[in-house]
Amino acid sequence: MKIAVLGVAQTKFGELWDQSLPDLLVRSQLSAIRDAGIAVSEIDEIFTGTMCAGLFLNQSNIGVIAAEVLGLQVPSTVVEGACASGGLAVRAAIMAIESGQADIVLVSGVEKMTDVGSQQVADGLVSAASHEFEQIHGITFAALNALIARLYMHTYGLSRGQLAQVSVMNHDHGFTNSLGHFQKKITVDDVINAPMIADPLTLLDCSPISDGAASLVLCREDVARRLGNDHVFIIGSGQATDTMMLSEREDLLTWRATKLAAKKAYAMAGIDTDDVDLIELHDAFSITQLLALEDLGFYKKGFGIGSVSIDNDLIVNRSGGLKSRGHPVGATGVAQVVAVVQQLREGIGSVGLTHNVGGCGSTAVVHVLNREKL
Amino acid sequence: MKIAVLGVAQTKFGELWDQSLPDLLVRSQLSAIRDAGIAVSEIDEIFTGTMCAGLFLNQSNIGVIAAEVLGLQVPSTVVEGACASGGLAVRAAIMAIESGQADIVLVSGVEKMTDVGSQQVADGLVSAASHEFEQIHGITFAALNALIARLYMHTYGLSRGQLAQVSVMNHDHGFTNSLGHFQKKITVDDVINAPMIADPLTLLDCSPISDGAASLVLCREDVARRLGNDHVFIIGSGQATDTMMLSEREDLLTWRATKLAAKKAYAMAGIDTDDVDLIELHDAFSITQLLALEDLGFYKKGFGIGSVSIDNDLIVNRSGGLKSRGHPVGATGVAQVVAVVQQLREGIGSVGLTHNVGGCGSTAVVHVLNREKL
Repeated sequence: MKIAVLGVAQTKFGELWDQSLPDLLVRSQLSAIRDAGIAVSEIDEIFTGTMCAGLFLNQSNIGVIAAEVLGLQVPSTVVEGACASGGLAVRAAIMAIESGQADIVLVSGVEKMTDVGSQQVADGLVSAASHEFEQIHGITFAALNALIARLYMHTYGLSRGQLAQVSVMNHDHGFTNSLGHFQKKITVDDVINAPMIADPLTLLDCSPISDGAASLVLCREDVARRLGNDHVFIIGSGQATDTMMLSEREDLLTWRATKLAAKKAYAMAGIDTDDVDLIELHDAFSITQLLALEDLGFYKKGFGIGSVSIDNDLIVNRSGGLKSRGHPVGATGVAQVVAVVQQLREGIGSVGLTHNVGGCGSTAVVHVLNREKL
Repeated sequence: MKIAVLGVAQTKFGELWDQSLPDLLVRSQLSAIRDAGIAVSEIDEIFTGTMCAGLFLNQSNIGVIAAEVLGLQVPSTVVEGACASGGLAVRAAIMAIESGQADIVLVSGVEKMTDVGSQQVADGLVSAASHEFEQIHGITFAALNALIARLYMHTYGLSRGQLAQVSVMNHDHGFTNSLGHFQKKITVDDVINAPMIADPLTLLDCSPISDGAASLVLCREDVARRLGNDHVFIIGSGQATDTMMLSEREDLLTWRATKLAAKKAYAMAGIDTDDVDLIELHDAFSITQLLALEDLGFYKKGFGIGSVSIDNDLIVNRSGGLKSRGHPVGATGVAQVVAVVQQLREGIGSVGLTHNVGGCGSTAVVHVLNREKL
């Protein structure tokens, strides 16, 4: 598999009071199209990932908006998989191209989260967990992850201070990302002493509530060849599912969907973890970064904290990750691809990985990218 | 293009107080898998269309449920395009197969609409219209369609009684469909004298609020060959988009998305309207059946009412259509394919068409099916 990434763009992420969802969407779309150097009329199909537009804005049918703002009548479809909506939209776009139905596809992720109150946001986020068996107990999405964090600390002897280092690292990386939600360094003490959200996770263990959009223009290899000779390609794509209910899992500290998605993506790309130079992974909470690095195969169980070491070869969340770049949920999976493409274009490495999760590890999608001359 | 439909199933549609969304989904899935004669473990990927699960049940991430209920860890994705969600899921499944990512795909549509009050249902349905420019005026989804109905009656001299005949015909057809929401014949007077919803549309001009699910098992031609020699195939697939806002349209009485989707599907299948024996089309409201038949190319503008004539060669909505079979919104596009497959298997015709719409004509998806021996 070889799908060229012709263009990438991300809006500013943050509390963007003066921009609506369509505003954000069209800005990221037009920037990605400009970056690709194509005309709007060359787009054959559109996919858009969004999770909460219905819940927060009473707006379904976003696919129509995604085409209408560009003056297009092409097929335009919304893809949803909770916080993995963006990554799933990327995979759907890849399949549209590989199927021969489309040569050039525009794929976006978008979310507008700050127009509603915090209770409505909490309700929206926990919609990714089982309504019948989990939400009914009143648990929040943060609390589901907190249960896992507590078990991890107990099982592997991880200290509160070590866990906090994940957020510190992501804020360090995000300090220079002007499009991120935050450009602010934090300390371990800041994390530990922040307001408690769900013990042991404080406010600074949790990714923020953000507005934002990100877009990609993808195409077949031969179309890319016509448009230039130096591109980033998606060379592997894997998606998998775990049980929604944590109570059904054999092991709460292994996210099977991540393992399966990674295995498939690596096999498709013909790589293993040693070949990977950089990752943008799904640190929705500090704990999820550790699980991700272990389940992606970079660390043995219990050793994911090694990734925050300053002299680590593997570059993790150089964009700041969900914690510092921000987490407009439907946009995140697309923004991760944008970040990896930008790093590969800058020559920071030659093989990059994205890892996007929906729910409490129940959906995972992994993409492998490289840069090469055609 | 040639995608085999190995298995089809539909649950009862109606007010199903004792069944949850996962109940409905898994029942239709297992019935379709049984009809296909395959093992659950042979499924490579899952797509599910749903519009209102988030809004009505606070349940996103339905893709996970769709895999979990079957004990599968395969990629499982939700596709949304308002009331066209089911049809868009079928098209996504086709692309997954054509891309080579999956050999056998399970595609479902599901909606659980009767667990919430009528105001919440009205809010949910109008989420398909523009939040910023249409919903804000307090207009309902039925009222948007009523504006079109009134204009059509004015422009083409259609009488109230003629419009009512559409619902009468669909209820006549649906009388013997035991899985439909209604098995009840109605008269023109019944329609005209029913409670007014949005002038000129009465309750009996509007499809009902239904629970239900429908599923298909799709596969590549060579996989189908291995499993038997007599199949229904999807041979054409087209999807297109119109503006969401009615105020942006050049002609309110032409649904451009339907025209474009049909043109593409016919070209792909190598057919024209003369080749079509039967249609399952999107009669969300009586008026939309007339627009559909005209925009699909079967009647000139203003003459769609000819389709309700008893001696009409073209078989329209033999299942009862959305009006009588019921309209669990996300399930409808899949249920239409189920109905066409069943009719083709019964030898009622050799070429069938499905026509599924999202919003007030803003998304349309058309599939062409035929039956042949391999």
